[in-house]
Amino acid sequence: MAKQNKTAGLRGLSAGETAISTVDKQGTGLSYYGYDIEQLAQYASFEEVAYLLLYAELPTHTQLNEFIHRLKQARSLPETLKQVLEKIPAESHPMDVMRTACSILGTLEPELNFKQQTQIAERLLAIFPSIMCYWYCFNKTGKRINITYSHNSIAQHILQMLYGKPPNTLQQKAMDVSLILYAEHEFNASTFTARICASTLSDFYSAICAAIGSLRGPLHGGANEGSLHLFSSCKNSEQVIAKVKDKLQKKEKIMGFGHAVYKKSDPRNALIKHWARKLSEQAKDEHYFVMAEAIEALMQQQKNLFANLDFYSALNYHFLDIPASLFTPLFVCSRITGWSAHIMEQRKHNVLIRPIADYTGVAPRNYIPVEQRLV
Amino acid sequence: MAKQNKTAGLRGLSAGETAISTVDKQGTGLSYYGYDIEQLAQYASFEEVAYLLLYAELPTHTQLNEFIHRLKQARSLPETLKQVLEKIPAESHPMDVMRTACSILGTLEPELNFKQQTQIAERLLAIFPSIMCYWYCFNKTGKRINITYSHNSIAQHILQMLYGKPPNTLQQKAMDVSLILYAEHEFNASTFTARICASTLSDFYSAICAAIGSLRGPLHGGANEGSLHLFSSCKNSEQVIAKVKDKLQKKEKIMGFGHAVYKKSDPRNALIKHWARKLSEQAKDEHYFVMAEAIEALMQQQKNLFANLDFYSALNYHFLDIPASLFTPLFVCSRITGWSAHIMEQRKHNVLIRPIADYTGVAPRNYIPVEQRLV
Repeated sequence: MAKQNKTAGLRGLSAGETAISTVDKQGTGLSYYGYDIEQLAQYASFEEVAYLLLYAELPTHTQLNEFIHRLKQARSLPETLKQVLEKIPAESHPMDVMRTACSILGTLEPELNFKQQTQIAERLLAIFPSIMCYWYCFNKTGKRINITYSHNSIAQHILQMLYGKPPNTLQQKAMDVSLILYAEHEFNASTFTARICASTLSDFYSAICAAIGSLRGPLHGGANEGSLHLFSSCKNSEQVIAKVKDKLQKKEKIMGFGHAVYKKSDPRNALIKHWARKLSEQAKDEHYFVMAEAIEALMQQQKNLFANLDFYSALNYHFLDIPASLFTPLFVCSRITGWSAHIMEQRKHNVLIRPIADYTGVAPRNYIPVEQRLV
Repeated sequence: MAKQNKTAGLRGLSAGETAISTVDKQGTGLSYYGYDIEQLAQYASFEEVAYLLLYAELPTHTQLNEFIHRLKQARSLPETLKQVLEKIPAESHPMDVMRTACSILGTLEPELNFKQQTQIAERLLAIFPSIMCYWYCFNKTGKRINITYSHNSIAQHILQMLYGKPPNTLQQKAMDVSLILYAEHEFNASTFTARICASTLSDFYSAICAAIGSLRGPLHGGANEGSLHLFSSCKNSEQVIAKVKDKLQKKEKIMGFGHAVYKKSDPRNALIKHWARKLSEQAKDEHYFVMAEAIEALMQQQKNLFANLDFYSALNYHFLDIPASLFTPLFVCSRITGWSAHIMEQRKHNVLIRPIADYTGVAPRNYIPVEQRLV
């Protein structure tokens, strides 16, 4: 790899201001609009957190009920969108499906005025689970599932669509917490992508499509799926430890460890680990959990790297029977809240985001007509 | 507008390295891989420039012929893509159509391996004009146009599809030069969007969809369309001057003037102005051209702002009978070359692009259960 200049990756460099969340600042690990992630994960529902991110304050009882009512109304898929989803090849990457569905929706229900932005954010929050599950189930079984169950909870709605029956309380809570933890994370790559797009004063859907595209990358949203692959190919702790050691020796990246911003730990790790453990206990299958803790200890000891949110999220989703290919689309269903908050914040204080680059190319040279060019 | 921190918009700040182009450096205004834009606009064809951007060198005669042959083979639209294009509502924003078509193509012809990247870049370069014209003509006339003419030149191909007959030599050259001038421009907002997306190691289509979304914004690719609207609502120089003065007094932005990076002039302005003038002479209609020069002089005198590429491009396209709604999609047909070059460069020396933000939000606060929240 070529030597990079100091600002490559903009690592540690401020690219603007935000009032939405703190990451590793203010003495707390992570907060959304001032609320510590630990309290939100323990006491709040994902709907409360989504409202907080879209409106900058937690809702009153009435506001929350009205918000949930609007979201329930907004779950249905336009007929044209269903037709397009059914045309997408079965072997497609589910994130390509999410990106395409969002793009199509931008033609069917366009943002003609920025005053529509909150309404569109709510629509996307409500419809993304329907898109994900409709395509997945149609693709797998050929059946057009019901996507307009009247559950109040998005977590319950998702699991009901995937299971074909209601989830139990623990399953719903574990999914709900996962959606809360993935909701917002400051200027991460996908959010920053959405903000740059928004900074040209483009429309809401363009910014979300751009964000989905960035989240799709294995260095970003793809990490939790990568974590699961580590487990699923091994039978026990010995095998997985040997595999990790082998990867470390080959200088391969172990997905789910370390972080671009957190230096000591990821505050979300303990929170998701708690629910992954509970699910593994309920399933009476602590097999993967033991393997996970062995990897966590090894990475700490050998590389001084901590597990991030993605690592135990993979286990959490595994015990929730979520197909690995839907891990990153689920991330979309949650992060749509943070992306929306950032698009609205960018628009409020807009400056076009346009950096420059250090030129490292060839010196000026003269054009030579094609007939005279050497082979 | 709130006070912004120093780095907002990353203006003047390096976000990495590039060997692809210089903007306002090295003593020349703009160069692509060392070749001055003035020489390229005068002597090269768009196909040569596209090859240069994708392969870092100008092609030999054989390489150019093979490249053109491959592009001609890659113009056709998959049946599913046609079906989706026909479902997109007639009143849709043409950039939403380009973004959606690119996203759908990413499911039909996915990038399964980065080794496919150059092939995909060529496919998009060849297919974008077909997508744009097929949708536009189907939408306007209900007819499914031929999109596989065997012209060597992309400029000729585009004009043939829109005109339904071959363009004349001057028209073809004016379009060709326009495609050359719009091809590449360092870390502009859409290119930087593509690079961030690519930096997560996402796929080629995701990065291009993200770039299209950014280019759609009126502060970026939408500027040339904005310039034309200035003319089209006025009858003569007096009227347009009065209108511009009125806008300036209201502190409204005049599209097509000034630039985020160029400080004294845009080297592309004189080049496109030359062809806009020739077309206006051929049309024996110098009306708009006189108006344009009056605005240019006024902006220089009153605001010390120079015309950028977008200003006379609007006129150039006007005299080429291009519908204003296709100005930005045409930009896509050209900039796909620069975007592709940057995605490939980002992948070659990849570092995840992930800045941080300055927190300006509320202080830490405690969660209050919903029942206890005040209305």
